[in-house]
Amino acid sequence: MERRPKSPLAFKNNKLHFQNLNLEQAISSIPTPFYLYSQEQLEKNIISFKDHADELDHEFLICYALKANSNLRLLQILERHNIGADIVSGGELEQALKAKIDNSKIIFSGVGKQDYEIEKALDSQVLSINIESIEELKSVNALARLKKKCAKIAFRYNPHVEVSTHKHISTGSNKHKFGMSRDDIIQALNDSELWSNCKLIGLSIHIGSQLMELSATAHAVSKLSKLADEIGIQLDFLDVGGGLGVDYDQNDSAPSIKDYMQTVQTHLVSSNFKRIIFEPGRRIMADAGVFISRVIRTKTTAGHNFLIVDGGMNDFARPSLYGAGHAIYPSRQATEVKRFDVVGPVCESADCFARGLELPELNAGEFIAIADTGAYGRSMSSTYNLRALPKEILLTKKGELLDITPP
Amino acid sequence: MERRPKSPLAFKNNKLHFQNLNLEQAISSIPTPFYLYSQEQLEKNIISFKDHADELDHEFLICYALKANSNLRLLQILERHNIGADIVSGGELEQALKAKIDNSKIIFSGVGKQDYEIEKALDSQVLSINIESIEELKSVNALARLKKKCAKIAFRYNPHVEVSTHKHISTGSNKHKFGMSRDDIIQALNDSELWSNCKLIGLSIHIGSQLMELSATAHAVSKLSKLADEIGIQLDFLDVGGGLGVDYDQNDSAPSIKDYMQTVQTHLVSSNFKRIIFEPGRRIMADAGVFISRVIRTKTTAGHNFLIVDGGMNDFARPSLYGAGHAIYPSRQATEVKRFDVVGPVCESADCFARGLELPELNAGEFIAIADTGAYGRSMSSTYNLRALPKEILLTKKGELLDITPP
Repeated sequence: MERRPKSPLAFKNNKLHFQNLNLEQAISSIPTPFYLYSQEQLEKNIISFKDHADELDHEFLICYALKANSNLRLLQILERHNIGADIVSGGELEQALKAKIDNSKIIFSGVGKQDYEIEKALDSQVLSINIESIEELKSVNALARLKKKCAKIAFRYNPHVEVSTHKHISTGSNKHKFGMSRDDIIQALNDSELWSNCKLIGLSIHIGSQLMELSATAHAVSKLSKLADEIGIQLDFLDVGGGLGVDYDQNDSAPSIKDYMQTVQTHLVSSNFKRIIFEPGRRIMADAGVFISRVIRTKTTAGHNFLIVDGGMNDFARPSLYGAGHAIYPSRQATEVKRFDVVGPVCESADCFARGLELPELNAGEFIAIADTGAYGRSMSSTYNLRALPKEILLTKKGELLDITPP
Repeated sequence: MERRPKSPLAFKNNKLHFQNLNLEQAISSIPTPFYLYSQEQLEKNIISFKDHADELDHEFLICYALKANSNLRLLQILERHNIGADIVSGGELEQALKAKIDNSKIIFSGVGKQDYEIEKALDSQVLSINIESIEELKSVNALARLKKKCAKIAFRYNPHVEVSTHKHISTGSNKHKFGMSRDDIIQALNDSELWSNCKLIGLSIHIGSQLMELSATAHAVSKLSKLADEIGIQLDFLDVGGGLGVDYDQNDSAPSIKDYMQTVQTHLVSSNFKRIIFEPGRRIMADAGVFISRVIRTKTTAGHNFLIVDGGMNDFARPSLYGAGHAIYPSRQATEVKRFDVVGPVCESADCFARGLELPELNAGEFIAIADTGAYGRSMSSTYNLRALPKEILLTKKGELLDITPP
């Protein structure tokens, strides 16, 4: 059985380490809370994804989904591995270009593209604008005509597949705002007025995020394949989207990349396309990052123990927004443990990272590391309660700690 | 029946107005999305709250909860009405002082006060540090001793009252991280070591936010009153917290301020205190603000209509975080309407402001106003999807539109 690459967090001599770094020593002068990323883990994840994709019968392109984490320095690492970008806003397009990601590897997704963003994408000659509605195609065609350009587009097909994930991040059923039905796509293809300045080069799907089983993927990819056959146009790519889950329980509960690739291979049987595009975000970034908070104090009241840390729901929103559970590592191991609710300083009951977790009784100044927070961590953070945004620190392969917080 | 002050949003000649402003004309040059606040409505809300409090048998102090909205310009308006501040972080303390709010009217609340924040509060001579645990009292006393000061403190009493509100913002039961039990407080009072540099000047409660009925308030205030009697120390204040709900359904479903004050009056029967402190946030700010987004386009697929606007869950988080429903006004009225899901451009299904809402078919560039978003709107916004933070615009009483976005 393929296990996920070893998490960067582990205990050595009862002290928490991140890769080979003894965190207690290493972070003593760094103000908390902050995100800590491992270049080594990030590169392992990219290479693993690429190696498995290499075994496919088709050419492929990996377009990393910037929304997971758009830190410039991390994007530069991805770029050095020839990764492309899946972007959803003008801001993300700028950031991808700033990281020198090749414009011919950039996919512009998203249900609410604005005219100025479409223009920017046309000017930047991105690989494809992934179209979410007939109405949007009209806008893109009109803007391309004004610029006397030809817009390369793909349709985002909504295969109306129900997936089991959090309702916030499931995107592929007919009640969702995303994508187009088969009928929409056929209708659009038959309307020649829409194509004066557009060219169809692909079809795409994205059925949701944090998918933990492959049956929905298989179903959706089959439908994508069938649609490609039906429209019968030779396409540059079929884009199977992102969504591959992460085992936040750290128990290899998520599908392996190998199984995922095999599922795609088995069900993507159309002969009408050249390349497969993948849009991973979470799977590339999540376990390369941890969120580190120092203990402010413990509190015991009415039989409950609370470990109060200096990181809050403003810094790391997934537990409050999705009820997400992440593994939490204390800075040291001890034989004696107690049950604690791990809570932040924000004035909401939602500001809670875990309930009833067995932990040593940590002292003020000791710390915890919340695992697998590289994706959808800093990118969702806010200054709620007028708290400063968390810093971002990179552990390089040379073992240096670099402050990579955006200015 | 006392109705809430009229909302600043209303239609005149089928066009949406904010106070007397025809929005279509007024905002034509303002990039969306943005928050728009009414000075007039804000002042009405303050004055209404003060007028009702004036009828109480006790002196009172209103400490506005900055977490609802900490825009400097809005705080300055509150300050001119002699409002104090309820703050929960060093950042909020700085902001309150910057707005020239009187330090002797500042209450420092919050479960995770850090040493540097406590020191800042001691240096600023705030009215009271509201203590959330015996462990925190130890820290405050130790820090005050180092500074050779006497810290004025209040205990935040957790009355263990269950309230009906969203689980994220209910704070007064024994499973919550907030406050101290009656036994904790008695124990702390009996430990003379904790009092070398602290003085108890009050007791406080805060049982939750967005409370829509007064029975829990009555119960909690009674318990607070009883505890004040039991400890038998003459106190400067009893702080009844905040939490008074807002009728987001715009149907006068929230308790009136008059009824709220009567409930407090009736149940706060201890003779051991001088002043009542109120900590309203939402009720002062919510209906003074609206969130304005322009329509990007409409989309119809698989029998569903979507109105896609340029504001998203990053700008206004309450619908995604709490499932909150807010009234949505189109820029113009029309006899013909259709049902729309009103969605933003962010790549999550949670990025949805309303489902199946009857609206005219608005064109690109027309807009919607989401009502009652002055509180917990901009203060919770993020740059998720690398979107810019929304602007903040103030309609002054003179009818000017001022850009009051923080630098």
